[in-house]
Amino acid sequence: MSGEGDGEALFRLLVSQRAHRELRPDPLPDETIERLLLAATHAPSAENRQPWAFVVVRDATTRARIGEIAAAAWRGGAREHSRARLSERLFADVDRWATGGLASAPVLVVVCGDRSRSDPRSLAASVYPAAQNLCLAAHALGLGSLFSTLATAGPDLASLLGLPAHVEPMVVVPVGLPARALAPPRRAPVASRTWRDRWGAPW
Amino acid sequence: MSGEGDGEALFRLLVSQRAHRELRPDPLPDETIERLLLAATHAPSAENRQPWAFVVVRDATTRARIGEIAAAAWRGGAREHSRARLSERLFADVDRWATGGLASAPVLVVVCGDRSRSDPRSLAASVYPAAQNLCLAAHALGLGSLFSTLATAGPDLASLLGLPAHVEPMVVVPVGLPARALAPPRRAPVASRTWRDRWGAPW
Repeated sequence: MSGEGDGEALFRLLVSQRAHRELRPDPLPDETIERLLLAATHAPSAENRQPWAFVVVRDATTRARIGEIAAAAWRGGAREHSRARLSERLFADVDRWATGGLASAPVLVVVCGDRSRSDPRSLAASVYPAAQNLCLAAHALGLGSLFSTLATAGPDLASLLGLPAHVEPMVVVPVGLPARALAPPRRAPVASRTWRDRWGAPW
Repeated sequence: MSGEGDGEALFRLLVSQRAHRELRPDPLPDETIERLLLAATHAPSAENRQPWAFVVVRDATTRARIGEIAAAAWRGGAREHSRARLSERLFADVDRWATGGLASAPVLVVVCGDRSRSDPRSLAASVYPAAQNLCLAAHALGLGSLFSTLATAGPDLASLLGLPAHVEPMVVVPVGLPARALAPPRRAPVASRTWRDRWGAPW
């Protein structure tokens, strides 16, 4: 059980996590990546079966190929889909990231789900919490990260990484030193998304 | 950006989260629940569209009904499925929880996904991280929680809570004071789930 100090520290971190699209190319040592993965593997999973798998990509050619897969998905539909919905400035940011920035992160952690260790219906509930722990651990170490499913939709990423048929890529998490500090995240108020006992009864 | 102290505190919390099946019935004030939800709503989501919704269930009759829905799912297949895989002791724990314990938590937060705010393909990736933040925030406050999809599979939970057609329950998180302290979580070593650059290349 944690003391009051730990709890308040965690709160500060939970409410200040941001998506870092601009990362410095400085390499990260294995020890750092292992700490992130240690945190990831302590997320909960159905029956504690831990159906996650991580491919830690630092090889420049593989990163570039992942960047191309993401860029193709972006140009193939996601770009037009997002343009209407994002502010002009955020759209420009995301566009730059999806067409080059992603590959320039020093590490891309591809978080996968292993269907041989999970009922398919609980795979997402058992893998995305681990990926979130990974991002939070990065934030705790002063690193930037991002949670992106852009490259995971088609078969290309699985094929590039040589994943067996029972393993699927579920999210790509680029990690590195942030290129710049970001403002606090913007969120809708809790009460706008919360109901009391039953849908429609205001919080 | 956080200092070194915050980072270490977060690590201790990330690696000590446990599934608490036994919770004390003591009620939790609104302020506490709001803190948990504030943390939940600071998780990342695709395009920052925040497609989560929370139904905070404290009403005893509704909790009992959620308990019945979970128990029916448990008896209707999950129980036999799990019996072969869990240790005898853990199975007995889960069995007791799934057939009564769940409903006795003072608060059940039903975390939902809102398809009107998300591409269906990115809904899980945008909602489960928020649910994980909720559990971590509970842990930070000394509360116990659990991540359960047992009651979410069929139509009964959505119907009980009056959810509109575009909103689906994705995980139920019981929260309360832990009835007892739990030992540290057990996990497979990071290296057993991690590959370097490509599947099959040992970390």
